[in-house]
Amino acid sequence: MEEKTWVRMVTAQTPTNIAVIKYWGKRDETLILPVNDSISVTLDPAHLCTTTTVAVSPSFDQDRMWLNGKEFSLSGGRYQNCLREIRARACDVQDEEKGIKIAKKDWEKLNVHVASYNNFPTAAGLASSAAGFACLVFALAKLMNAKEDNSELSAIARQGSGSACRSLFGGFVKWNMGKAEDGSDSLAVQLVDEKHWDELVIIIAVVSSRQKETSSTTGMRDSVETSLLLEHRAKEVVPKRTKQMEEAIKNRDFGSFAQLACADSNQFHAVCLDTCPPIFYMNDTSHRIISCVEKWNRSEESPQVAYTFDAGPNAVLIARNRKAATQLLQKLLFCFPPNSDADLNSYVIGDKSILKDAGIEDMKDVEALSPPPEIKNAERSKGEVSYFICTKPGRGPVLLSDESQALLHPETGLPK
Amino acid sequence: MEEKTWVRMVTAQTPTNIAVIKYWGKRDETLILPVNDSISVTLDPAHLCTTTTVAVSPSFDQDRMWLNGKEFSLSGGRYQNCLREIRARACDVQDEEKGIKIAKKDWEKLNVHVASYNNFPTAAGLASSAAGFACLVFALAKLMNAKEDNSELSAIARQGSGSACRSLFGGFVKWNMGKAEDGSDSLAVQLVDEKHWDELVIIIAVVSSRQKETSSTTGMRDSVETSLLLEHRAKEVVPKRTKQMEEAIKNRDFGSFAQLACADSNQFHAVCLDTCPPIFYMNDTSHRIISCVEKWNRSEESPQVAYTFDAGPNAVLIARNRKAATQLLQKLLFCFPPNSDADLNSYVIGDKSILKDAGIEDMKDVEALSPPPEIKNAERSKGEVSYFICTKPGRGPVLLSDESQALLHPETGLPK
Repeated sequence: MEEKTWVRMVTAQTPTNIAVIKYWGKRDETLILPVNDSISVTLDPAHLCTTTTVAVSPSFDQDRMWLNGKEFSLSGGRYQNCLREIRARACDVQDEEKGIKIAKKDWEKLNVHVASYNNFPTAAGLASSAAGFACLVFALAKLMNAKEDNSELSAIARQGSGSACRSLFGGFVKWNMGKAEDGSDSLAVQLVDEKHWDELVIIIAVVSSRQKETSSTTGMRDSVETSLLLEHRAKEVVPKRTKQMEEAIKNRDFGSFAQLACADSNQFHAVCLDTCPPIFYMNDTSHRIISCVEKWNRSEESPQVAYTFDAGPNAVLIARNRKAATQLLQKLLFCFPPNSDADLNSYVIGDKSILKDAGIEDMKDVEALSPPPEIKNAERSKGEVSYFICTKPGRGPVLLSDESQALLHPETGLPK
Repeated sequence: MEEKTWVRMVTAQTPTNIAVIKYWGKRDETLILPVNDSISVTLDPAHLCTTTTVAVSPSFDQDRMWLNGKEFSLSGGRYQNCLREIRARACDVQDEEKGIKIAKKDWEKLNVHVASYNNFPTAAGLASSAAGFACLVFALAKLMNAKEDNSELSAIARQGSGSACRSLFGGFVKWNMGKAEDGSDSLAVQLVDEKHWDELVIIIAVVSSRQKETSSTTGMRDSVETSLLLEHRAKEVVPKRTKQMEEAIKNRDFGSFAQLACADSNQFHAVCLDTCPPIFYMNDTSHRIISCVEKWNRSEESPQVAYTFDAGPNAVLIARNRKAATQLLQKLLFCFPPNSDADLNSYVIGDKSILKDAGIEDMKDVEALSPPPEIKNAERSKGEVSYFICTKPGRGPVLLSDESQALLHPETGLPK
């Protein structure tokens, strides 16, 4: 390796994902091995994704990282695990044009810079760590010319954040809990890609909350230690449910899909409640959203919408098709209108064509909405929802080759 | 039996009760046989009780009933079951002073009048049906000179409302689920009377709610049919927990008592959440109360307060002693002050001496309360709690011999 100043950079974009069969509870805290399989749907990176640029240069004197423009330490165990695992798989790199030549053995001595950016608010509780760790591992692997496929990489991303392993693929993804003590078989596989079931539309309600939530790491640990229901769920309930969910996805059987996803979300929150001290992620607004969806589903011949909630009050609503999504948005905007001073354009974000289909162009249209007929005395509660994101299932990680999209400067390796 | 106009009347007073090991799920809907044992504490009838007068007269041409002054039909299956079972156990009655002589066989032909009154709001979700059916059965048994003891009567009250069987005794009471198909061994027994653990103080927070709750009958049925966790709870968790709770009560071991009561309340609500459609009885205010108690308990060497919630948002808080209750009331009034226009005298009802011990005489004292040190940035939320009831464990049913306390007119048998 010649000691001249060069910077090698790779930029990747990785989606976030939402579990429809939930991961809750680790059997190994360090390796992040779960107590059950889980299944997720990958969300369209156009609306929710992380972009990460990783760079290497002989001029870097330490590993450094910037998240959304702010520097953070990379010394945390989870980052170190991911860095160590990718470095161990690094291969020779040669870029004649730039005069870069890195031998396999050199990677141990080279420092990296990492810059990462979410196209959605980190604090909104939308699994930013899943997209973040998946993107870090994916980008580092490409930077270091590791030959592992995405499933193999998922087992590394898993060691950053469990659910990150499911962000290595688009469409529907299964995280096999695995059996091996070293975690080598605890990795993600794609069940179907995002084209398999392209009718689905997803609306996320970002719910206002005044409470600080229990971190999922702490919550899971408490549940494993104290819930008398978690083991039964992991051993008896989830294995059957996972198989049924795989079938439902394969057959695009929305009725079964919705029933399983809703039941599993509710059971995960039940286990949280059965934990000592109890964990409440859903709030009254979450409950009202569930109640809206349940009443509508029951008033129709078959379910129109599935709901699922992660470790927070936000609702992820999966509509069977565009028509159902349009009706859903009308019902949601009736029950959860924005504050009077809000701008509709920032209240419904993402794919705004759903709003157009719903015939809603301005706040007057929101005010004129009819109450959902299936809800008796439907109330309108302003301000309970911060905003809605309209999106759909999406693709897995991609490399961004256009250097203008890189988050680090190509010569200094520092944030642009 | 001479056909002259007389009215025979009996008035009884029966407490309500709150389960500390919960009853949730029936194995027989008609006989009301539960899927697990439960344990309750009887609440002081001075603050929460039902008073019922039952009367019989040859002049009554039908069975009639008045609840809190309003006439209701007695034709419902649950009332009919109780009436039939007591009539089947009726014995000869002779009252020479009044010239009443009723032979065992005559009871089938005689109609009864029932008047019942709760000394607390029926709609507050404070187990009014438990006290009501217990009182009905107890009073009818005395009216008809049935020889059964309170345990045997509890098996009849059970057929009116499951939890009613536990209101036939004071102190701590266990409802044995029983094994017999006819329900004959599914009855209540007293574990200890109200003097055994007389340090305990109970504060009930009646929580404001805008939602209509699922009836417990419907909720239980849905849970039995759809929850995949209920059976595990009933078969694996509750049997052990019941034994531990009996030990804790026997030994007045407040630490274990609180841990078991809180865990069981949370698990019952977890099963509700695991039901399809999910049932939410607790709301954000309930969650905040739990959080207050959990934080305080964890900041002390051992638990000061146990919480338990039935099929609604109200918190029943059991303090280990008077000192803990005084501190609890201060913390609660800090976090949940009344609306500005409220009258303290109607905001804290029941045993007001706790309020005095807490040094609170008027609204200025409430405003001047210090935030609980164990809660960071404690917020004050006006109007979330409707009122507090200060009470304690209490005695079982009693007969009220003073005719002035009867709810029916001694000559007409109609409501006074």
